[in-house]
Amino acid sequence: MRTEIKINEFERVDDLHRNGYKIIQDPKRFCFGVDAVLLSGFARVKKGERVLDLGTGTGIIPILLAAKTMGAHFSGLEIQEESVEMARRSVALNELEEKVSIHFGDIKEVSGLFSGQSFEVVTSNPPYMNEGGGIVNPYSAKAIARHEVLCSLEDVVSGAAKVLQEGGRFYMIHRPHRLTDIILLMRQYKLEPKRLRFIHPFQDKAPTMVLVEGVKGGNPMIKVEPPLIIYLEPGKYTQEAYDIYYGEGQA
Amino acid sequence: MRTEIKINEFERVDDLHRNGYKIIQDPKRFCFGVDAVLLSGFARVKKGERVLDLGTGTGIIPILLAAKTMGAHFSGLEIQEESVEMARRSVALNELEEKVSIHFGDIKEVSGLFSGQSFEVVTSNPPYMNEGGGIVNPYSAKAIARHEVLCSLEDVVSGAAKVLQEGGRFYMIHRPHRLTDIILLMRQYKLEPKRLRFIHPFQDKAPTMVLVEGVKGGNPMIKVEPPLIIYLEPGKYTQEAYDIYYGEGQA
Repeated sequence: MRTEIKINEFERVDDLHRNGYKIIQDPKRFCFGVDAVLLSGFARVKKGERVLDLGTGTGIIPILLAAKTMGAHFSGLEIQEESVEMARRSVALNELEEKVSIHFGDIKEVSGLFSGQSFEVVTSNPPYMNEGGGIVNPYSAKAIARHEVLCSLEDVVSGAAKVLQEGGRFYMIHRPHRLTDIILLMRQYKLEPKRLRFIHPFQDKAPTMVLVEGVKGGNPMIKVEPPLIIYLEPGKYTQEAYDIYYGEGQA
Repeated sequence: MRTEIKINEFERVDDLHRNGYKIIQDPKRFCFGVDAVLLSGFARVKKGERVLDLGTGTGIIPILLAAKTMGAHFSGLEIQEESVEMARRSVALNELEEKVSIHFGDIKEVSGLFSGQSFEVVTSNPPYMNEGGGIVNPYSAKAIARHEVLCSLEDVVSGAAKVLQEGGRFYMIHRPHRLTDIILLMRQYKLEPKRLRFIHPFQDKAPTMVLVEGVKGGNPMIKVEPPLIIYLEPGKYTQEAYDIYYGEGQA
């Protein structure tokens, strides 16, 4: 018989609209966003594959992928201890202990943490500074590019490269203004960019996010996909965005 | 009094829908395509600037830019002698001899050909194999990436870098599947990618072309623009595509 999963007073439990799965979140800390949902819709996980999510936070991506795909096992790596503990409770809440495991540790040490293991798929929705809608100040752009973000982007890409099998796939969501560095780092670490999709709030707006797939040791040839448009008009999802958020159905 | 411009029997003269300008083309050789028109709509040429077009063919891009912008002078470099001669007749036909000059020569020797000169703007619609709608055969992809196309792409990017002023702008149209190499080569030759726009035949289709702007010595920060959609439905242009083709007006 299962023990009751503890939910703290300051936490909330949200429905993931997939298999009845739920997730525990702390609104004061960090709640998963639309980027995690979009990444889980973009990533392709085949039957029997093992997946590692770098910087898993609440565990949203492993849990969504466990719901959406036929993958064999899903690991999440997270550096914040409180998030690890909360993510583990979400795993237990969904009775996913056999399929999903949450690990405490630093992306920079990923090869040591998972030594001897390799994965068919690595996903990441890495932390990036929230700079609103596009940067126009070159000083702030420089600050972002040279300090926090570039560092962690390289950590994510190099970490993924270390634990992926040859031919394994890397999926990441990031900001379009970092596209040059994303592509350069992926090529540098032999995660050849193979698939790119831009996410636009509306059809006539610049993209606010980009999804990328890389293949370890892949051939140099990238496929840019149709734009993923979120809204037909304010408040009304496109069918595709609706399906990604809530599963196949009517918008 | 002007001499009559010779039009050969096998040639045709097409209206450019700009300033009454026309262009001489030989349907058996090469006629300008939609990519040249889109590139001339994407490139920004300010008053008084000097522009060089690498691989100018019929001279379409310098002639369109002379019509659309306040640039001071437009040069075109072309390696095929017959095209040079025909482009020069198009320049004369439009009485643009003072503003547009067509040069015979190889992109690989661009710095020698224009020694002592530098340009604020370089444009190029380089030759790329017509492989239809996306390559799925890795052997053909490899063949394209390693032989013809990669070579000429690097020639174009390095040539542009040689003749551009610091802060000068490079505009190119190419195929999305080469995006990784385009971005890598531009960074390598210090033409930092600053602006990217994908061209989709329809809103829900993958892009068939990509427009890119690089700035010599620019900061690493790229802006991906809204998708440029060509057709609302088969046979019906979007307003934006119509305006690029025919000038501002009703689609």
